[in-house]
Amino acid sequence: MIDPLARWASFGEKPDFTGLLSFAGQPYTEDALELDGADVAIVGAATDDLVSDRPGTRFGPRAIRAAGAPPGRHLTAEIDAFEVLRVVDYGDAPVLPGDPQASHAAIERTVSEVLDAGAIPIVLGGDHSIAEPDMRAVAGRHGPLGLVHFDAHADTAAQVFGVARSHGTPMFRLVEDGVVDPARYVQIGLRGYWPGEREFAWQREHGITSLLMRDVAELGIEEVVGRASAIVGAGPAFVSVDVDVLDPSVAPGTGTPEPGGMGAAELLWAVRALGRELDVVGAEVVEVLPGAIGTADVTALIADRIVRELLTGIAMRREAGEG
Amino acid sequence: MIDPLARWASFGEKPDFTGLLSFAGQPYTEDALELDGADVAIVGAATDDLVSDRPGTRFGPRAIRAAGAPPGRHLTAEIDAFEVLRVVDYGDAPVLPGDPQASHAAIERTVSEVLDAGAIPIVLGGDHSIAEPDMRAVAGRHGPLGLVHFDAHADTAAQVFGVARSHGTPMFRLVEDGVVDPARYVQIGLRGYWPGEREFAWQREHGITSLLMRDVAELGIEEVVGRASAIVGAGPAFVSVDVDVLDPSVAPGTGTPEPGGMGAAELLWAVRALGRELDVVGAEVVEVLPGAIGTADVTALIADRIVRELLTGIAMRREAGEG
Amino acid sequence: MIDPLARWASFGEKPDFTGLLSFAGQPYTEDALELDGADVAIVGAATDDLVSDRPGTRFGPRAIRAAGAPPGRHLTAEIDAFEVLRVVDYGDAPVLPGDPQASHAAIERTVSEVLDAGAIPIVLGGDHSIAEPDMRAVAGRHGPLGLVHFDAHADTAAQVFGVARSHGTPMFRLVEDGVVDPARYVQIGLRGYWPGEREFAWQREHGITSLLMRDVAELGIEEVVGRASAIVGAGPAFVSVDVDVLDPSVAPGTGTPEPGGMGAAELLWAVRALGRELDVVGAEVVEVLPGAIGTADVTALIADRIVRELLTGIAMRREAGEG
Amino acid sequence: MIDPLARWASFGEKPDFTGLLSFAGQPYTEDALELDGADVAIVGAATDDLVSDRPGTRFGPRAIRAAGAPPGRHLTAEIDAFEVLRVVDYGDAPVLPGDPQASHAAIERTVSEVLDAGAIPIVLGGDHSIAEPDMRAVAGRHGPLGLVHFDAHADTAAQVFGVARSHGTPMFRLVEDGVVDPARYVQIGLRGYWPGEREFAWQREHGITSLLMRDVAELGIEEVVGRASAIVGAGPAFVSVDVDVLDPSVAPGTGTPEPGGMGAAELLWAVRALGRELDVVGAEVVEVLPGAIGTADVTALIADRIVRELLTGIAMRREAGEG
Amino acid sequence: MIDPLARWASFGEKPDFTGLLSFAGQPYTEDALELDGADVAIVGAATDDLVSDRPGTRFGPRAIRAAGAPPGRHLTAEIDAFEVLRVVDYGDAPVLPGDPQASHAAIERTVSEVLDAGAIPIVLGGDHSIAEPDMRAVAGRHGPLGLVHFDAHADTAAQVFGVARSHGTPMFRLVEDGVVDPARYVQIGLRGYWPGEREFAWQREHGITSLLMRDVAELGIEEVVGRASAIVGAGPAFVSVDVDVLDPSVAPGTGTPEPGGMGAAELLWAVRALGRELDVVGAEVVEVLPGAIGTADVTALIADRIVRELLTGIAMRREAGEG
Amino acid sequence: MIDPLARWASFGEKPDFTGLLSFAGQPYTEDALELDGADVAIVGAATDDLVSDRPGTRFGPRAIRAAGAPPGRHLTAEIDAFEVLRVVDYGDAPVLPGDPQASHAAIERTVSEVLDAGAIPIVLGGDHSIAEPDMRAVAGRHGPLGLVHFDAHADTAAQVFGVARSHGTPMFRLVEDGVVDPARYVQIGLRGYWPGEREFAWQREHGITSLLMRDVAELGIEEVVGRASAIVGAGPAFVSVDVDVLDPSVAPGTGTPEPGGMGAAELLWAVRALGRELDVVGAEVVEVLPGAIGTADVTALIADRIVRELLTGIAMRREAGEG
Repeated sequence: MIDPLARWASFGEKPDFTGLLSFAGQPYTEDALELDGADVAIVGAATDDLVSDRPGTRFGPRAIRAAGAPPGRHLTAEIDAFEVLRVVDYGDAPVLPGDPQASHAAIERTVSEVLDAGAIPIVLGGDHSIAEPDMRAVAGRHGPLGLVHFDAHADTAAQVFGVARSHGTPMFRLVEDGVVDPARYVQIGLRGYWPGEREFAWQREHGITSLLMRDVAELGIEEVVGRASAIVGAGPAFVSVDVDVLDPSVAPGTGTPEPGGMGAAELLWAVRALGRELDVVGAEVVEVLPGAIGTADVTALIADRIVRELLTGIAMRREAGEG
Repeated sequence: MIDPLARWASFGEKPDFTGLLSFAGQPYTEDALELDGADVAIVGAATDDLVSDRPGTRFGPRAIRAAGAPPGRHLTAEIDAFEVLRVVDYGDAPVLPGDPQASHAAIERTVSEVLDAGAIPIVLGGDHSIAEPDMRAVAGRHGPLGLVHFDAHADTAAQVFGVARSHGTPMFRLVEDGVVDPARYVQIGLRGYWPGEREFAWQREHGITSLLMRDVAELGIEEVVGRASAIVGAGPAFVSVDVDVLDPSVAPGTGTPEPGGMGAAELLWAVRALGRELDVVGAEVVEVLPGAIGTADVTALIADRIVRELLTGIAMRREAGEG
Repeated sequence: MIDPLARWASFGEKPDFTGLLSFAGQPYTEDALELDGADVAIVGAATDDLVSDRPGTRFGPRAIRAAGAPPGRHLTAEIDAFEVLRVVDYGDAPVLPGDPQASHAAIERTVSEVLDAGAIPIVLGGDHSIAEPDMRAVAGRHGPLGLVHFDAHADTAAQVFGVARSHGTPMFRLVEDGVVDPARYVQIGLRGYWPGEREFAWQREHGITSLLMRDVAELGIEEVVGRASAIVGAGPAFVSVDVDVLDPSVAPGTGTPEPGGMGAAELLWAVRALGRELDVVGAEVVEVLPGAIGTADVTALIADRIVRELLTGIAMRREAGEG
Repeated sequence: MIDPLARWASFGEKPDFTGLLSFAGQPYTEDALELDGADVAIVGAATDDLVSDRPGTRFGPRAIRAAGAPPGRHLTAEIDAFEVLRVVDYGDAPVLPGDPQASHAAIERTVSEVLDAGAIPIVLGGDHSIAEPDMRAVAGRHGPLGLVHFDAHADTAAQVFGVARSHGTPMFRLVEDGVVDPARYVQIGLRGYWPGEREFAWQREHGITSLLMRDVAELGIEEVVGRASAIVGAGPAFVSVDVDVLDPSVAPGTGTPEPGGMGAAELLWAVRALGRELDVVGAEVVEVLPGAIGTADVTALIADRIVRELLTGIAMRREAGEG
Repeated sequence: MIDPLARWASFGEKPDFTGLLSFAGQPYTEDALELDGADVAIVGAATDDLVSDRPGTRFGPRAIRAAGAPPGRHLTAEIDAFEVLRVVDYGDAPVLPGDPQASHAAIERTVSEVLDAGAIPIVLGGDHSIAEPDMRAVAGRHGPLGLVHFDAHADTAAQVFGVARSHGTPMFRLVEDGVVDPARYVQIGLRGYWPGEREFAWQREHGITSLLMRDVAELGIEEVVGRASAIVGAGPAFVSVDVDVLDPSVAPGTGTPEPGGMGAAELLWAVRALGRELDVVGAEVVEVLPGAIGTADVTALIADRIVRELLTGIAMRREAGEG
Repeated sequence: MIDPLARWASFGEKPDFTGLLSFAGQPYTEDALELDGADVAIVGAATDDLVSDRPGTRFGPRAIRAAGAPPGRHLTAEIDAFEVLRVVDYGDAPVLPGDPQASHAAIERTVSEVLDAGAIPIVLGGDHSIAEPDMRAVAGRHGPLGLVHFDAHADTAAQVFGVARSHGTPMFRLVEDGVVDPARYVQIGLRGYWPGEREFAWQREHGITSLLMRDVAELGIEEVVGRASAIVGAGPAFVSVDVDVLDPSVAPGTGTPEPGGMGAAELLWAVRALGRELDVVGAEVVEVLPGAIGTADVTALIADRIVRELLTGIAMRREAGEG
């Protein structure tokens, strides 16, 4: 394990643009034995073989690490998650471009190693097809999962262009395979023109809860999060954030943007609140299609902040003796 | 006429990045006879010879077509406009760079061909000077028009830098020439520093209604749309959307952006509501100054969505037996 | 002094992309004697030697001038600040890259020249370290200052990476040195993860008022501005706007963006209201890290508009006989 | 079939930024029957599922069409290929993202339709894996092919990351399957660090001719083309141009650029000379990873010019009564 | 007149990113009286109303000034042109967007003011249509001109899209009107596909010398410049550089790039040699379509260097007592 | 030490966009003890506090690592340097933004640690001011150094804007302090307008050899390298490559580009030849001002290739039993 901060130890923190590239400047290892004692482990899943439109999310994990800043106390929550939780960056799963099946297997295996070490996996995508290996691994340990799913799109198609394993199909497959419990599955932020009536009929049949973007606007984010928490309840929960739930003005760096999405403050608050309220056993932030090193890559940046808010919520829960 | 979907017929839809470039993947023709039976025809007007600041809107029509997605059911409105309406892409008017007068004549002629076929023309700009030929053609068929005009700027100057036919002057000329009925003309979203007191005095004299961005913030978009509908009333109506009515964060790709504009959800809802409430006989989306093929060109994307919302509203009206 | 409008005199205004590059097309001089009679003088401070993350704000002053538009009547406030106030562009302070101490001395000297001429200095940054020379010069004439400080970050660290004169430390130093009166110092828009508890403890000890972004969301911008006005009161006041107070969707061109910030309309209104309510004796807009000439550089553009709103507020105050 | 020029008929040509997007503004059809009488048909192959590094070539065909200019007489060759040859744009093969096998089948089918109509197919990629379906279709009609292959990389690996069908393997598979005759196969422009000794040993065993970039520099392009022509000889020949054969300064828009490549003038001359000397029965230009509509996308532009030079060479051959 | 260096006088030079934006940091004036004593005056011509493809050259003059560096001794020529010649930046001609006729009149008037003061005008474009007013003004003083014209395109069409005053027509009109003497007119660098046989027939009839890019490659730049000097001879000469004569890798920022052009070193040497050999009475650098302030805008940069090389050549001639 | 390849061991190599970011995918450590046995160690020096124009090279080391590809056999040299040499990435020196003196001390210390381990340091900049600590450390071990210095600028000023420690001054200071032996110091590629006669007089006094870009063009790169090798001779040598020695078309990502520079093939060959001929005891590649992750950052890419060519030359020398 390498602690990137060690070289800058006398200054308390490391400039963001220097040193080993790890999530939030946290210790980095690729050795499963060194996960021991970690509360949370970050895993990168650098995939985009299964996207239906613009590719490039394979650069997402690296960009999120590059966009991030050092740990610090959350000004509003008044807690420093990295002081409460031991967070380790476990590197990227050994994915293979051109072989999505092998990549999914590698992701599932890497996430399982995190779970075996007793840590909560947080996966940085990659396209949303990784929801499959992510949640299969987590459910393998915790059983059927409750799911809060932020997205512009329901991702519950049976196939996209005839392809069953796609970034538009993971939730269909996870529910059909019993990995996600549809009665404890809430979608937030849907809008636009996809998927169609067939998919929504299937969702209704299975009792999945859909809160459209219009609902968020009308009810307010606090009510929406309250409803989601109530539906997911006390069991093990997974949080899946597709950054295209955000308005394209906030997160332009994504492959299938849809105007009219959430604002940054709304989503950041929601993720923190869910970390505080639910028993989060795993999470993912996906569909970051990054821009530039050395420029303000606002999408990668907000992906970093989404993870931090979740960590902050989890830390608050721990502090309150509930986690 | 070419139906771009035909080659992908067995898959139900065509990937956005492939095949003939047409609006929303709809059938494409440049033959007026093939417009027969169309409810709506899209026309591109690739101009920017008359802009006062940054040029480039000549690339707008192509970019809007490239940014769009396949048809689909509107998740909130629960209707697929492309199933209700027969939409055809009629290509671009034969404009000539360096000869704005000839370009305007070509646009007016092309829009007239759409009207002659009994279809509603929706014009993709191009700079806002095209409002002149667009509305002259439509009024030639339907008589003086009611107008809902979304814009940061009133565009009612008599001249800009001594030029009478400019992207800052169309509304002055259209009112003066009797094409637009000032009593049925509502401006929404004005802000910033232009035009001056002289122009607003002229507007007041003619009874034009101006709803500043400040009014939108204070009244809310639903009240604003309600007032606009009431003022325009039952006669033939034109909807003109200059994308700079949106905040530059939402629509950065435009030549004269002005901070403090509308959000995406506000505008998209408003356009759909107007399509539902008014007798829309023509429309235009202008001042898209695009960025990149293969990247998230958010401004071209939202222009695509503006047209779709309008189509959705028109389809709802048809379904209700009012259109 | 050169009046850039002179060549275009017969047209009333100059196209933005032509002629001498000056703020809002106003007269330009580098001769202190020619400041005589000016109400406001613009000063550029092209620095970035002291930033902790992404550099480039040295291009800020030039970009803000390039992004701006000609003067005009404010549509909502119904006043043209440039008719009420005589504004002069006094060019850039003679900064030296690689020698931040010399640069700060040059900025302090240049701002003092403006004050000696009886004009209000408005400084275009540059990184936020220039708050030091800016306010030292102003307090040298007017005594300890009230301060309204818009920012994502408090900038009250004693040092950053062991560096005492940094873009993260100016407010600490200005309060410690008696330049800013902490009882009349209000911070608006703080969020994220920096600085830490030590800095906030110091702030509380000194009686500084911090209104987090969460407070802005809960109280509304009008209440926030009202409180700030009350706290700063009747004495000489300085307004410092770090553009990272805005959401990165609104102002992506900055070195340390933080998601979840203010909207454009909120900030623009607030600045105008403060110009109207306070006795503003100096101001600065900082941390603009520009993009492109000839493209929509939305961050430089909003920086231009921030200055204009402030000018509008000051002009309103003058018109009311209070300034 | 749609002739995009028809609307601009009275002006002789169509502005590049307007109208139906087709290669060089040529007639466009998706109906195989309308290929009748064509000498050359352009086919787009919008794939990138099989790339090992940066994706995005799925946008290549559209970008090459957008970058191109109207036909015209070649200033040096003094011939207008489009007057000698009837060129038709046959649109894109119906590829499916996420299903490379189906995409390859679709490409092979579409290219075969061109061949069935008696036309020469020129395929716009897409990644280099399309060499497989391209040449399989052509050899299906003409028998084993001679091949001139411009590339920085030999693309003769048996697998890349364990994937046998990749953009790094097509030439291995085509030789092994007898589609390409290794004795008539010449590689031009190889450099850098890939593939390894194993692949070159295989090449030597099969008698493939490799002319490294160093050879091009030492021998000169005329000698290199002369040798290649002699080796390929009189039989049916395919020309495959991977734009990464060019220096990254000339063609930055590609996924695996390698410094030290060919200049534009060298490659353009070489392609024209080969069109003149060989019996070209098919060709492809691949690995264009485009930038922007409305900007100078120099890589897509040069891809357009590569096709034109080849057409010019073929036209010269026809004129000389040899083609 | 403002000398931008004055504020930095004690440091010998001004950082490029600070202070008044003028060519090479030279004194700036908009007052014709202050041209007195100048050897050379720079004039900006910020136009693009007459381009046939991508617009944006209106931002060229500003970008060239921003890209430039302070004066200095030419390392190879061993002379500092700014010590030999008194160079003044005379600002931009008062062009009007949307009114190309008025803009051309303004340019001709401004260039004439420079000539009236006895200085050599060097015009920064703007599109190539400005060759008309530039040379009309110069010939108005010096009589019919010899012309060395660097360009990818001959620009001798009688009309483009039916427009007679275009960026593709100036040389036709200047020769027809007797402004340019065709026997003393040399074109260098032509290539690609435009214009057609009709235009070249007209050129041959008038005795214009065309050196294609192929000629430059075969003869070498020294021979080409030697021939051009001999043809232009001893009379008054104008040098017109369209930056698209350069390869798009060298000058991507232009509206109609054509692969296979000149290298930077070739062109820079040629311009300096011509400045040394000919009696240059005026010059222009056109078709710079800039990118970004604060980034490496290589096209604007090379435009700056082209002017400097020309100045260096002129200075060498003066020093030799021939100018 | 972490070997990034380990996770992908069964595939032989790691996709470039995945896993730990290290130079050429080599093992990474920040522990000096783990340098034991290394032949070469890479060190990042992420600085730009001392640049005189555009900043951003602080992002250089990270970008060079991101642009690089896996090891492989050099196609022309027919050797895989990474099989001959044990190369380790030793991370970044602990620099501090805003404190250039501390940063230089940190760089000197880190490079010394590499030397203490018996490895050759290759430093990735950062701006050229790092030449000072780089060579001071190396000379501290090996005594006064021979130097081959590729650059557009001589960097031998005594001060820039009054600053003695700048990216324009390192070579002056290193010669004056006896670190570099001027009789064994060769500059290659100088051009443009800086520095002035004073600096060149100083150079001549000290016997420094300057080969201008014009010399490279006239003599050819092989002769230039031959002369440089002869002058530097058998003693310990340092190779310093400022990427602005390359033409801006080849390396646009740098802060002070100068048109008319070297081509990629020339420089790459030269560096390899010098690695083969000289006793290279240290090297640096500086002034990379990167663009984008996930795009073709051609400047960072060529910086990676420069290091590889040098490694290849060193490996060739080792293989020949001379190193």
